[in-house]
Amino acid sequence: MDTPRPLTGITVLDLTQIYNGPYATFLLAAGGASVVKIEPPGGEHLRRRAEGGFVLPFAALNAGKRSLRLDLKTEAGRDILRRLALGADVLVENFAPGVMDRLGLGAAALQAANPRLICAASSGYGSDGPYRDYPAMDLTVQAMAGFMSITGEADGPPLKTGPAVSDFLAGVHLYGAIVTALLERERTGRARSVEVAMLEANVFPLLSAMSLLKPGDPPPARVGNRHGGLSLSPCNVYPCADGHIAIIVGNEGQWHGLLRAFGQQAVGENPRFRTVRERCARMDLVDAMVGEWTAPHPKGRVFEMLLAERVPAAPVRTLDEVAADPHMLARGALERVEHPLYGPITVPHSPLRMGGLPVEAHVPTGALGGDGRAVLAELLGLDDATLDALAAAKVI
Amino acid sequence: MDTPRPLTGITVLDLTQIYNGPYATFLLAAGGASVVKIEPPGGEHLRRRAEGGFVLPFAALNAGKRSLRLDLKTEAGRDILRRLALGADVLVENFAPGVMDRLGLGAAALQAANPRLICAASSGYGSDGPYRDYPAMDLTVQAMAGFMSITGEADGPPLKTGPAVSDFLAGVHLYGAIVTALLERERTGRARSVEVAMLEANVFPLLSAMSLLKPGDPPPARVGNRHGGLSLSPCNVYPCADGHIAIIVGNEGQWHGLLRAFGQQAVGENPRFRTVRERCARMDLVDAMVGEWTAPHPKGRVFEMLLAERVPAAPVRTLDEVAADPHMLARGALERVEHPLYGPITVPHSPLRMGGLPVEAHVPTGALGGDGRAVLAELLGLDDATLDALAAAKVI
Repeated sequence: MDTPRPLTGITVLDLTQIYNGPYATFLLAAGGASVVKIEPPGGEHLRRRAEGGFVLPFAALNAGKRSLRLDLKTEAGRDILRRLALGADVLVENFAPGVMDRLGLGAAALQAANPRLICAASSGYGSDGPYRDYPAMDLTVQAMAGFMSITGEADGPPLKTGPAVSDFLAGVHLYGAIVTALLERERTGRARSVEVAMLEANVFPLLSAMSLLKPGDPPPARVGNRHGGLSLSPCNVYPCADGHIAIIVGNEGQWHGLLRAFGQQAVGENPRFRTVRERCARMDLVDAMVGEWTAPHPKGRVFEMLLAERVPAAPVRTLDEVAADPHMLARGALERVEHPLYGPITVPHSPLRMGGLPVEAHVPTGALGGDGRAVLAELLGLDDATLDALAAAKVI
Repeated sequence: MDTPRPLTGITVLDLTQIYNGPYATFLLAAGGASVVKIEPPGGEHLRRRAEGGFVLPFAALNAGKRSLRLDLKTEAGRDILRRLALGADVLVENFAPGVMDRLGLGAAALQAANPRLICAASSGYGSDGPYRDYPAMDLTVQAMAGFMSITGEADGPPLKTGPAVSDFLAGVHLYGAIVTALLERERTGRARSVEVAMLEANVFPLLSAMSLLKPGDPPPARVGNRHGGLSLSPCNVYPCADGHIAIIVGNEGQWHGLLRAFGQQAVGENPRFRTVRERCARMDLVDAMVGEWTAPHPKGRVFEMLLAERVPAAPVRTLDEVAADPHMLARGALERVEHPLYGPITVPHSPLRMGGLPVEAHVPTGALGGDGRAVLAELLGLDDATLDALAAAKVI
């Protein structure tokens, strides 16, 4: 018998796809919920990409979920979903707004039949408002949210951030909303629908840059790797023999620490660099000077030198370094597993650490629909003959 | 009487600072929790920056919290914290690992006195492991997590993403962990400590790029605004008369939609551009061609043209456009308020939409310690004479 986890006993119907919704349901599964991943006949979009070699996101995001293939374009398929929803705690989807209603599977209808069901939805812009039907992908939301406008070099074009932050910010907010609703239901008996719009889940990280907006002035420019307000120096990414290092000097003590690290204490006597105000006035010069100090050394060595002087810094790590990170491997945040479909891969575990509980086991994603018969026998009590008929009709 | 919200009746002691922790407790306050923001004598770091003009993050993140000034460097201050913890549901902090233990306020001690207390912590790298004591700020975590290594132009340096995504990804995960623990406590009576490491909260958004890692090959290069795998075209940010537009063509139908939008159907007949494979083989040429089509028009007009043809796209919006977004204002996700300390500002509300509940009211952040006497009278029953003595001794 497994150790009970916080969400053990919660049944989740998971209609989600790609990143946003599947991250929310991954976190639910990691918390102990029983998550049934309901996939269209051809498999979820990301599963199909995994078959093309793009394995890691699908394998990681769908760990701990059971796969049920179900054709919601058939009335028999929709009937099965309705019957599953009668006994479920949560239904999660990230279709475009309106899709579930058009299928006759909207929250109002499902909750009329099961008032304890929490219906959770995420989309680019939410279920109402003028942008409701705008296309939403990580790239377009990064554009609409203003992320791109403040990412990039001062003299270059707006840039996206490489990681799919807009999708995942939405997904973890969706998890938060679902668990909040579960808590309220536990406390009061009332089950709510919850919603997260990707755009809205991306606003708070912009606040520091937004605080630089001045009425009548143009919006803040891009600053490369410098501090948003151009009010700290040195603060940048500097070249090293084998890559780069990020350094942020937040006060005069750290400035002198930096000088000691490179044996440059004499610079501290120079009035042109004595205060942050003076350094910001000649930021290009300061950055060039620090870059000369860092350039001869490997990034790991520079990091050690700065750590010893308590100067905030970090090597710019490449993805192979991150994927083999000894710290996360030691903490069990990353794990090397042998995946039955995809072979040896390194997968991340849930970032939510619950004291006294081991990290959740990595239960690999199975084949498309591989758990369908077991799930329907367990949750709906369907017998073999019925399951055979559904399979023959290509409903499951 | 206000409408009860999901977390009404939950008392949170909030020792957090800057972005990560305060975002978690902001979300708790928006959910209805009673959050006491416990600040050091000089005020939380971000409050001090707000006094220097950097207003928006502090005002937005601390809405709905009551401010108690408390000097934890005094035994009397620590004693008050311990007494508050006896009656609290959650204590949240994002100090460096070990700080709370050194103050004698570690989770084990507090939970021994109040077994129902959930202690929540967030730090850059977590409370154990080899990197535990590394400096952690948004910039350094973006470097360590590999975000920078995949952000930027192919021929340029690694770049940070402008928004403080690493901090806020951690903060919203911390919220999720806290509510998960509250739910478990409600279901089983057991209260756990929870923890989120910023680094770990940043891993999942990297998975698509990580899936491109091949043993023995160099890690994936930066691709500017192109698709990570360089397997889609057109997919980029293109110039417009007044800015830029992001376009991502995911299939042949969208490619023909794009051509129709610009009256360029003839290009669809050209075998050099007929398949995504052909277009990717001459991506520079495709991008230059699309850029010529977009450049004469304002970004809003290009967006309309592409929307009409159902091609995924979005204008690259500047921060002033985002801050005045009619969609978020219409949904109540943004609100213009008159702040008693800072004057007229536009603040975001919680991205967690709970069906049937209005958006939480914006209750402005008060002055440093402004709620201290009321909080201590209410929660500890302290009388005026005791409060006067604590104030005279500069404990509160």
